[in-house]
Amino acid sequence: MERIGFIGIGTMGRPMSANLVKADYLMTVYDVAADATRPVVELGARAAGSIAELTEASDIIFTMVPNSPDVEAVVLGPDGIAENGREGVMVVDTSTIYPEVTDKVAAGLADRGMEFVDAGVGRQQVHAEAGELMFMVGATDESMARVRPLLEIMGDTIVHVGPPGQGIRMKLINNLLAGFTNQASADAIAFALKLGLPFDKVMEVLTGTAARTGHLSITWPNKIFKGDDTPGFSIALQDKDVNLALRLAESIGAPLDLGEATRKSFESMIERGYGGKDFSAAFAAACEKAGVPLPPPGAEKG
Amino acid sequence: MERIGFIGIGTMGRPMSANLVKADYLMTVYDVAADATRPVVELGARAAGSIAELTEASDIIFTMVPNSPDVEAVVLGPDGIAENGREGVMVVDTSTIYPEVTDKVAAGLADRGMEFVDAGVGRQQVHAEAGELMFMVGATDESMARVRPLLEIMGDTIVHVGPPGQGIRMKLINNLLAGFTNQASADAIAFALKLGLPFDKVMEVLTGTAARTGHLSITWPNKIFKGDDTPGFSIALQDKDVNLALRLAESIGAPLDLGEATRKSFESMIERGYGGKDFSAAFAAACEKAGVPLPPPGAEKG
Repeated sequence: MERIGFIGIGTMGRPMSANLVKADYLMTVYDVAADATRPVVELGARAAGSIAELTEASDIIFTMVPNSPDVEAVVLGPDGIAENGREGVMVVDTSTIYPEVTDKVAAGLADRGMEFVDAGVGRQQVHAEAGELMFMVGATDESMARVRPLLEIMGDTIVHVGPPGQGIRMKLINNLLAGFTNQASADAIAFALKLGLPFDKVMEVLTGTAARTGHLSITWPNKIFKGDDTPGFSIALQDKDVNLALRLAESIGAPLDLGEATRKSFESMIERGYGGKDFSAAFAAACEKAGVPLPPPGAEKG
Repeated sequence: MERIGFIGIGTMGRPMSANLVKADYLMTVYDVAADATRPVVELGARAAGSIAELTEASDIIFTMVPNSPDVEAVVLGPDGIAENGREGVMVVDTSTIYPEVTDKVAAGLADRGMEFVDAGVGRQQVHAEAGELMFMVGATDESMARVRPLLEIMGDTIVHVGPPGQGIRMKLINNLLAGFTNQASADAIAFALKLGLPFDKVMEVLTGTAARTGHLSITWPNKIFKGDDTPGFSIALQDKDVNLALRLAESIGAPLDLGEATRKSFESMIERGYGGKDFSAAFAAACEKAGVPLPPPGAEKG
């Protein structure tokens, strides 16, 4: 049985690594905040004191860290995985970062005879807890076969989209479309409320036609409609991903008609103090902007 | 049994009126293009030579005509419904028009003791054929009770959103959100194809996360993914509705972050010759803009 390492035990990394421990994998975990690993250690994982120590003890290493520089530091930095790993070690990055950094990290590992897989994560924390994530995977066929059993423990939809680097590109497209539709849904409903339309009727209509979005049917009912704005995935992180996607689009000359407006919209929410809230709080931000009260929890059902 | 009139026997009006004829209502139909009524006449409807003649023969009159001036002319114009109708006649407008015109028409009919209902239509021609439309209805409770049995023949989801005038406002919100998400879906997928991601994998991902839209799951598979760009609902009509919605938003001071970009995007499609195509051809327009070939029919399934 392969020995697993997991670096980055945060909102998503904690439930993801916990599911691997529960599946009886020998796990070593690491986080820059030492006490972040405690819940997983209590389930039976071992906490490493350094990335070098974790690398020593692992055959496959998952990374789930905040941003591009963090992935680069963890993998290619001094005392990082590349410096300490043996030939044949596999790194699976599940962070959302800029694809050029993904490509650089993959190349740096290949130079030392190590494998690299980028596995972009779809869906939210609640799905991570339940082992029902979606993975968008960039990997060779050989790496895919090796990592698949582990992804299947953490997720229920594993899509092999292409060679290394393509998983993260798919993920950015996904988060860009989610960003577009989050903002569009928010503005449309706030507009309807400002016209005096009853919230429950608005929801009945908009979830019953081609106008429907995943946010209205799935993500908002689990969060903002319950009065919960604690971040499963924050507006600041969605803003980060939208910006990564737009930078990528610009670099390949893909024109996005709604791109700039979406970026400005997220920026304006952050300026108004919504950055730390769940992305479904875009609805609260739109209501505030339109000057209508946010409907109370349950009002969407009448 | 109430005698029904139906004015405007086009893409939507034809299947809608046909379903009323099939339900054995005594029907009189009228269209400015006289031969447009033939398919419904063959089912048993009577064609009127004028709106006055139709009004004479009807207790409840449906209108489904292209735009605000058409509704105003049909109802309030010389030889129109208001001039020829008896007290108690009900007019049900199912067109998509500017709400101020709706309000004016409702007031004009009320002055003569007639009833008015605005019933915005959700979904597409295929649903009209099947009697599975959604209606967003603005009506008094009394009018609602009177019209509901007829709407239930043409649709399977009848949402009474408020008093007269609110149905068309809800409908504009619906079409605005549908316009946002149509454009966003098109740009996101063209971007993905430009990155070299396989179309079937892109579809698997984007229909399996919160990024999903009704277009990707429902409307596009029925049209552009089959290579069919004949207009069920054309880009020119979607452009019309988006513009009506944005004008309404401006008039009430509802700020829409993506509004202007969406409007420009539809304008650009029309300039490039897509106005007469189905709104799902926004995907073809986005592929052209990004410089990638439109995937052939069936490619979305791999």
